[in-house]
Amino acid sequence: MKVKVVTKILEANERIARENRRLFDNAALYVINLMSGPGAGKTSILEKTLALGTGLRIGVIEGDIAGSDDAERIEKHGAPVVQINTGGACHLDANMIYEVLQDLPLQDLDLLVIENVGNLVCPAEFKVGEDIKVMVLSIAEGHDKPLKYPLMFQESAALLLNKIDLAPYLDVDINKIKKDALSLNPDLKIFEVSCRTGEGLSAWTDWLKKKALKNQKTADDKD
Amino acid sequence: MKVKVVTKILEANERIARENRRLFDNAALYVINLMSGPGAGKTSILEKTLALGTGLRIGVIEGDIAGSDDAERIEKHGAPVVQINTGGACHLDANMIYEVLQDLPLQDLDLLVIENVGNLVCPAEFKVGEDIKVMVLSIAEGHDKPLKYPLMFQESAALLLNKIDLAPYLDVDINKIKKDALSLNPDLKIFEVSCRTGEGLSAWTDWLKKKALKNQKTADDKD
Repeated sequence: MKVKVVTKILEANERIARENRRLFDNAALYVINLMSGPGAGKTSILEKTLALGTGLRIGVIEGDIAGSDDAERIEKHGAPVVQINTGGACHLDANMIYEVLQDLPLQDLDLLVIENVGNLVCPAEFKVGEDIKVMVLSIAEGHDKPLKYPLMFQESAALLLNKIDLAPYLDVDINKIKKDALSLNPDLKIFEVSCRTGEGLSAWTDWLKKKALKNQKTADDKD
Repeated sequence: MKVKVVTKILEANERIARENRRLFDNAALYVINLMSGPGAGKTSILEKTLALGTGLRIGVIEGDIAGSDDAERIEKHGAPVVQINTGGACHLDANMIYEVLQDLPLQDLDLLVIENVGNLVCPAEFKVGEDIKVMVLSIAEGHDKPLKYPLMFQESAALLLNKIDLAPYLDVDINKIKKDALSLNPDLKIFEVSCRTGEGLSAWTDWLKKKALKNQKTADDKD
């Protein structure tokens, strides 16, 4: 009989996340865990980040319940990419990541982006060995999301407010989103972006580049 | 030591769902489990459904990780409503519903709407004793959702494509959504709606009313 004890699942996840972390550190690799609800625009933001030419060597792990659409979109930009299909699971865990790391050229990358399953809840609970979590919220999802899904806002280092070009056509209070998100997490860095118009994306990639290069420098100092 | 066996959790859920079902049948109550990703517009659709005056006596159970915003919105329309906060759980289960049924006047209602936690994945796996599942997809979430989140489309009797007024401002292929959703579930009834303009909502409420009244009639025949 297979018995799964919930606390042990989380403990095992932490242990494997630390092992992933060790592999990332050995490769001086900066890792972000990219999270959002379904259709907020994670893959589009990633495509734009690749197209903007940050100078960073970026690898990607795509997490989805089913399908490989997202990996195909990333592949067109020439980035090394692996698709994970979770079957039914609603989030990525550390072991799923560990299993695919051998398929990526970690030593030749500066930044690894792990695009989680589209879900505003569970992905925030499972560390995968990342340096930071980054979340995307489409403003079309409404201004009540920070207070209804607090954990992801609390856990993230940055929030990308996407589809900002839709603001004139929505009854959404963007200042309330920002105010409530900052009340949950005063250190949260917020970017307003649109993948359709390109607005705000260079501020995001500049910030990301600085983070990744700082990590690179810290790793060099250790050598 | 507390041991949770996953298969037993699902078995226990089925058992409690059947008990809920028995209570609903005794009250000749038609029950829908309303599901979507975060911010697709479940509560807005419910508000519009209440405001349109179907003649049905409607009660509501609101499920959220945190907060009571949605229950407050429903209460303004004069409907009996109970808010469930799941803590961290990403879906409602049958037991959560069972626990709050005593707080609703089941015998005085024709229709109970259970608004699930905003999540396109897990809510579709847990029966709560409903007659049918209904899902909402905001067209702003993109046309790749049916193939990426197949279970919810397969489990639902109806799909409300919401925020249809945003179509001119999005790069979204609505026909692809419909085609892929129907390939997963040929019996799926699809409504294109907008809570902002009111488009399509009366077709939805007419359909819902017919379903609920048919249930009422079937129950009467049994008496």
